[in-house]
Amino acid sequence: MYRQDAEATVQVDTLWRHARLATMAETRHGLGIVERGMIAAQDGRIVYCGDEAGCPTLQAREVVDCEGRWITPGLIDCHTHLVFGGDRVDEFRMKLAGARYADLARVGGIRATMAATRCATPERLAADALLRLDALIAEGVTTVEAKSGYGLDEATELRQLATARALSQHRRINVSPTYLGLHAVPPEFADDADAYVDLVAASLIPRIAAEDLAQSVDAFCEGIAFTPAQVDRVFTAARRHGLPVRLHADQLSDTGGAALAARHAALSADHLEHASEAGVAALAASGSVAVLLPGAFLRLRETRRPPVDALRRHGVRIAVATDLNPGSSPLASPLLAMSLAASLFGLTVEECLLGMTRQAAYALGRGARTGSLEAGKDCDLAIWSVEQPAELVYWLGLNRLHRRVCGGR
Amino acid sequence: MYRQDAEATVQVDTLWRHARLATMAETRHGLGIVERGMIAAQDGRIVYCGDEAGCPTLQAREVVDCEGRWITPGLIDCHTHLVFGGDRVDEFRMKLAGARYADLARVGGIRATMAATRCATPERLAADALLRLDALIAEGVTTVEAKSGYGLDEATELRQLATARALSQHRRINVSPTYLGLHAVPPEFADDADAYVDLVAASLIPRIAAEDLAQSVDAFCEGIAFTPAQVDRVFTAARRHGLPVRLHADQLSDTGGAALAARHAALSADHLEHASEAGVAALAASGSVAVLLPGAFLRLRETRRPPVDALRRHGVRIAVATDLNPGSSPLASPLLAMSLAASLFGLTVEECLLGMTRQAAYALGRGARTGSLEAGKDCDLAIWSVEQPAELVYWLGLNRLHRRVCGGR
Repeated sequence: MYRQDAEATVQVDTLWRHARLATMAETRHGLGIVERGMIAAQDGRIVYCGDEAGCPTLQAREVVDCEGRWITPGLIDCHTHLVFGGDRVDEFRMKLAGARYADLARVGGIRATMAATRCATPERLAADALLRLDALIAEGVTTVEAKSGYGLDEATELRQLATARALSQHRRINVSPTYLGLHAVPPEFADDADAYVDLVAASLIPRIAAEDLAQSVDAFCEGIAFTPAQVDRVFTAARRHGLPVRLHADQLSDTGGAALAARHAALSADHLEHASEAGVAALAASGSVAVLLPGAFLRLRETRRPPVDALRRHGVRIAVATDLNPGSSPLASPLLAMSLAASLFGLTVEECLLGMTRQAAYALGRGARTGSLEAGKDCDLAIWSVEQPAELVYWLGLNRLHRRVCGGR
Repeated sequence: MYRQDAEATVQVDTLWRHARLATMAETRHGLGIVERGMIAAQDGRIVYCGDEAGCPTLQAREVVDCEGRWITPGLIDCHTHLVFGGDRVDEFRMKLAGARYADLARVGGIRATMAATRCATPERLAADALLRLDALIAEGVTTVEAKSGYGLDEATELRQLATARALSQHRRINVSPTYLGLHAVPPEFADDADAYVDLVAASLIPRIAAEDLAQSVDAFCEGIAFTPAQVDRVFTAARRHGLPVRLHADQLSDTGGAALAARHAALSADHLEHASEAGVAALAASGSVAVLLPGAFLRLRETRRPPVDALRRHGVRIAVATDLNPGSSPLASPLLAMSLAASLFGLTVEECLLGMTRQAAYALGRGARTGSLEAGKDCDLAIWSVEQPAELVYWLGLNRLHRRVCGGR
């Protein structure tokens, strides 16, 4: 047993005791539940996680009595467009009021956000992102991915990535910046998308890799965005420069996006509403994570659900994320993302909770470091005032977070 | 102009200046917007609301500079089952995991909550309700309806109503308790629902009316609940005792619920997914409010939307509410209710905002007293850090409430 006073064998910073744990550990069954659990942290890492009774003798500087509360890994939002200028409220309002397409095109779309992002000051960009990040943090998020893709010119794309990275100077949060050069064709290349693709592959990717500005490269493969051939060129360049890839795949139509992602050993393929069985099988073979995004599904009033049964049958990891963005998913709540994934996609409670923790960590290539409560991993915790973890998925709009711990603090 | 120092003509308690107002006043167009607005309150009532320039000379004890923020009426959640024992997390979890009907029946349904409510202590019942109420309050709610219907025996129904009423002793909130005797057939009357209906009509209703325990009487008219004839008997008794009625109408099938509600001049008919054109026309004629509940629609995975176009054509007032309850709608967020009403039902931003303010007030029979910013009405305000009111509907899970004022404070 641990003790605070006597001659103890191991010194740790903090002990969380009297807790129930949903460890999400792959070595355990389901949510990896430990009923009488305890966690010890030293230098920001978990050094013990498990049964209170089986714990080695520890001396802790701080002991936290969790009073029977549940601890999960800190939540991981593995697909967001957190950093952007302006909003798209006018587009939203006009669309609901039945505005004509021509009027919407004037105020809406990725290019509208691109224009607002290009002219936003770095301070404003950061302040707006922090506002949204604080909403995620308030629900227990300790790791967040943040994509570029609203600059579409070199300076703004790099500013978006730098803003994302700098968020961790303002909050205790792990940020994973993603370069999404192929989000939309910038107006400067309206007549020659291939020239833009060449620029991204030959100039931006090498610079981003060399200066370590992003942890992965994303692209939007769709009729309204980039072709599989264009994505293929950029992904080839990214991997040549040591950057793993991820893909907005098969969201609005089956372009073979899932298979394309798999061919490049993508960390994740995201959306997937129209992915084929063959695409799903390819993801299984490549070990890519399927990231499901119910916010965009809801907001775009989609009717075709992602192939959840096929993903299960083929054993593909399923993650869930907010897709927080100003157009198709102004969703700043990971709890709500889980609840919507259950109601709209039929995910089980376990799939939702694993999808916002362990599987989301894999989608960011961080599975060895976070996403579950295990010795050796970062001490990123969310402590909940609930009777059972399923409550996190059950409620809509009721946040039962008691405390968040990021890097042991 | 107002002034604080000189010989002023009118003394008021508080002035909110430098505000933009969405007054929701019926006398104005749309949201009733005043760009350079000001509100003055005395003794909990609004004494001036309008243009800052046109304001009479006022002397205020307190002046609040709103710094250009938007003020709406405090939000009104006109359909909730706020007071209940236990939760239905197990039912939710098992259902998503594909549990068999027989297993679900064991842990689920209104009767499960009835059992938990009957055995809950009054203290626990109040504490749980306050937790959920605080979530509503955090999003600007100043008036909330709260139904009984989870006791289904005299003692527990009265305890639920008393608990609802007593919430306003713990928080600054207007509570409108509703007696929902006909929610489900209690097990004691499983073989004779009519005997239960008689008891409600002949004994409960007179007592509730005499002791002023509820402000209206609700019923659930559905194949799985009570027949139109049974509801008719209870509604007749209610109205004879001076209690207005409201109805859970045509949610899962068209039972003629809307027309039944209209025949009894109901304050509201709620759900309405399956209401007929004739039912809608009847609601228009009776002046009943249509209360739309997207939380239950989402959670029950319904596909048939309420007849929004028909409601518009016939000029029926449309309100939106959370339906906060442990089974079909564990939704504790009025902002989310609005956002879901837009995405799932296609309501416009204006309809959503009016539906959570002015029209919701009418659904509670309180239209003369609250629901809009007008002189003479209660000073119930929600002050928002947004650029335009549409943001309240646009975001999912981002609460931009700056401050709430209930009864002038």
